[in-house]
Amino acid sequence: MSEKIQKLREILAEIFDLERASALLGWDQQTYMPSAGALMRGYQSGTIDRMAHDMATSAALGKLLDDLRPTAGSLDPDSDDARLVRVAALDFERAKCVPSDYVEELARVAAQAFPAWAQARQSSRFSVFQPYLEKLVEMTHRYVSFFPPAAHPYDVLLDRFEPGLTTAEMQAIFKPLREKQVALIKWIATAPQVDDSCLHQKFDTQAQWDFGVHIITKIGFDWNRGRQDKSAHPFTVSLSADDVRITTRMNPDYFGDSLFSTMHECGHALYEQGFAEGLGRSPLGNAASLAVHESQSRMWENLVGRSLSFWRYAYPALVTSFPQLKGVPLTTFYKAINRVQPSLIRTEADEATYNLHVMLRMEIEIALLEGTLAVKDLPEAWNSRMKDYLGVTPPDDAHGVLQDVHWAYGELGYFPTYALGNLISAQLWETIRAQIPDIEAQIEAGKFDALLGWLREKIHRHGRKFAPQEMVRRVTGSGIDAAPYLRYLETKYRAIYEG
Amino acid sequence: MSEKIQKLREILAEIFDLERASALLGWDQQTYMPSAGALMRGYQSGTIDRMAHDMATSAALGKLLDDLRPTAGSLDPDSDDARLVRVAALDFERAKCVPSDYVEELARVAAQAFPAWAQARQSSRFSVFQPYLEKLVEMTHRYVSFFPPAAHPYDVLLDRFEPGLTTAEMQAIFKPLREKQVALIKWIATAPQVDDSCLHQKFDTQAQWDFGVHIITKIGFDWNRGRQDKSAHPFTVSLSADDVRITTRMNPDYFGDSLFSTMHECGHALYEQGFAEGLGRSPLGNAASLAVHESQSRMWENLVGRSLSFWRYAYPALVTSFPQLKGVPLTTFYKAINRVQPSLIRTEADEATYNLHVMLRMEIEIALLEGTLAVKDLPEAWNSRMKDYLGVTPPDDAHGVLQDVHWAYGELGYFPTYALGNLISAQLWETIRAQIPDIEAQIEAGKFDALLGWLREKIHRHGRKFAPQEMVRRVTGSGIDAAPYLRYLETKYRAIYEG
Repeated sequence: MSEKIQKLREILAEIFDLERASALLGWDQQTYMPSAGALMRGYQSGTIDRMAHDMATSAALGKLLDDLRPTAGSLDPDSDDARLVRVAALDFERAKCVPSDYVEELARVAAQAFPAWAQARQSSRFSVFQPYLEKLVEMTHRYVSFFPPAAHPYDVLLDRFEPGLTTAEMQAIFKPLREKQVALIKWIATAPQVDDSCLHQKFDTQAQWDFGVHIITKIGFDWNRGRQDKSAHPFTVSLSADDVRITTRMNPDYFGDSLFSTMHECGHALYEQGFAEGLGRSPLGNAASLAVHESQSRMWENLVGRSLSFWRYAYPALVTSFPQLKGVPLTTFYKAINRVQPSLIRTEADEATYNLHVMLRMEIEIALLEGTLAVKDLPEAWNSRMKDYLGVTPPDDAHGVLQDVHWAYGELGYFPTYALGNLISAQLWETIRAQIPDIEAQIEAGKFDALLGWLREKIHRHGRKFAPQEMVRRVTGSGIDAAPYLRYLETKYRAIYEG
Repeated sequence: MSEKIQKLREILAEIFDLERASALLGWDQQTYMPSAGALMRGYQSGTIDRMAHDMATSAALGKLLDDLRPTAGSLDPDSDDARLVRVAALDFERAKCVPSDYVEELARVAAQAFPAWAQARQSSRFSVFQPYLEKLVEMTHRYVSFFPPAAHPYDVLLDRFEPGLTTAEMQAIFKPLREKQVALIKWIATAPQVDDSCLHQKFDTQAQWDFGVHIITKIGFDWNRGRQDKSAHPFTVSLSADDVRITTRMNPDYFGDSLFSTMHECGHALYEQGFAEGLGRSPLGNAASLAVHESQSRMWENLVGRSLSFWRYAYPALVTSFPQLKGVPLTTFYKAINRVQPSLIRTEADEATYNLHVMLRMEIEIALLEGTLAVKDLPEAWNSRMKDYLGVTPPDDAHGVLQDVHWAYGELGYFPTYALGNLISAQLWETIRAQIPDIEAQIEAGKFDALLGWLREKIHRHGRKFAPQEMVRRVTGSGIDAAPYLRYLETKYRAIYEG
């Protein structure tokens, strides 16, 4: 057994190496690669991804897993070995469904779709991106066709990012969530509005960068094992738990974009930097799921980063960095960064409206998959839904359908995890408040180690050992549940808008 | 035939993809990778390099080459296809000698030796690097043992970088070169000395960066297909002809380090950016050899960058960038940047002494390989040779044996190509002056396109189609020859030191 486990670990380690080399090719493309490099980068990513896929579906690996599965039952079910066999078998079964050529083609197409998206977004011309997206949607249909028929074709996509969750389950969670968030937004619209003009001034971009670095250093980002760069769309990539990279972007006219995206990505990075050492170079050295990942980023961005306790600690330093805030009282600033206003850009949306942005994308993806919506009609579909859900209309496609990078990677089915992450973050927060009763006082004192320590212990160190639903249940005692998030929103916004 | 050629191209293209992904892993390690990432980076590079090696030595490739070799004789010998088969067969034979495990181990050891070298150099403690270098020298012995016995074991190393050149041939070229360069240096020591104090002032590092960018843009570096970053040791890496990256470093107290290293690396980059399009994703999309590569970098750095014609064009702009040079006449500046003075650092050495730095390294490498010198005795051997050859003694190992990165990659046998590159650059320059008689006037007018066009036509576009000696003979009518370089040095330094 132990010899076979060893052999399994060796094969999985090499797959991991290739996946992380591919991640570096992707990071580089979004940060430093010169513009003309995209074509050859597509070939490079395609070859690496195909080779990783070939290894991940090899007969040798299949045989090893067949041999190991029965005996793994005799191990402690929570041991690394038992969990490794389970996760590896899951990955193998899924990978086996997808032909190698498809994987290579997707990497190549995506490497060319990315600059096309970037150019389309910059010039706000959807037509530049349209043929690439059509190709990617066609490939998504093909991807779904590789798998046994599911209750809904979208289930196949969801399973890539949120293993085990069905479209029906997700819609059951989202339906009441949407109703209650819409009701909350309507009530807020009737209340006296918040003035956030203090955020819309000139903010030196270097000072923004420096303040973000100061904050994430304080909350625990390990710079020996990570770095930050700039990119059009902030993201986190992990080349190993010892090399976790985040990006941010700066808006000179608006404070909020940079700091909150830095804290958001830092939340992702703390998760990746927190995997137990023994999980490295194996599929367990990954997040449990994207929703769990997002629960970490949204927690640091919102439950910490947009809380009054946090700013009681951080505001004096912020005012020192940005003297233009000198006359602005803390409560005015706090309300400003929490102003609810239906808006165009998801990543800048307040917590009350954010999930609606996500649901809009999910519905569009489902319509694309069901074939009831064509790619060429996307801008119109986007804009009319924005009007419906949020009462706003994008002035151009850059502020509409072109704002997010995800589709340029062919990653349909990814967005719902953002809303699920919000829900999980609030579930975790209620548990944290029960287990660390003075957590708010600690944050107010600029102390983040108890919180980070709790997350490390309960979530981070386990990597992908536990399935996402199982992980949430282990930690909070409940499955994914919208109630804590709704309670959180109600309490927070009642205080802000009734006060 | 054409079907088999197509199949060959496909296999070679995938090997090329892996090699370039490995190059990105290396670039990243030297520029942006956080310090803790080295261990996992070693695994990643090791896996990729081993997989590339497995493909490069596969039975399928061997069979294909066996089938193609006889029929390739019927092709135009200068055609891409004929040359591709020849080069691919050469690479295959060489790769077959080296076991896969060795390739993986070397990548892993080098990824850890690099940060050890960087740390050793920073703290000037050879002992930090010594165990890694011992391991790498041991591995070099093993590498040599994989090949059929050669006239000299160093031949095996040389052949990696300068295919076809033997140690005996190289020593035959170097012996008279050394004698004449030593005589020249002695004569210069008796002449009135040049004052280069104008170069040793405070120079704003951002202005240095900007001026370097200005110059290499002017001479033809294509920023859509390349970029520049900072690193401890300047280098060029090519991820494809459409993505060629150089690095530089800045010294705030000395003008010369940054600009000349930028021009040097730009010379390498122009070569890589100049390969004919059809050579991409194949072994022909590489330089003919490192000496030919170095002939390009040294030409732009020295024959152009340290010439009076060039500074007649560039000096006014330089003075605008650095007002501290305002009172310094052009001829004073020109003499200053060409001051001959035996010194400690190879990359900063003047043209009269540079080759002696190279020969010192070559002799040490040969002694390491012959087993007459142990790694632990390297600092002493280095320092005593520096005293012998150049009359100077390093104050510490950072300015001595630790100054170059090459050994940290296990790249013994690389240094001689630097001196050979100097020789070839002067051979090319004599040919250029014959074929473009007004070349100096063009440079003086800030016009570089005829020169770059000539290099593109005669050298760059051919990539690795021609063996290095063949290439030099085709272009200059002679094999590698020290006479033009010696003529160049004599003429240049007589004018400077007699004037």
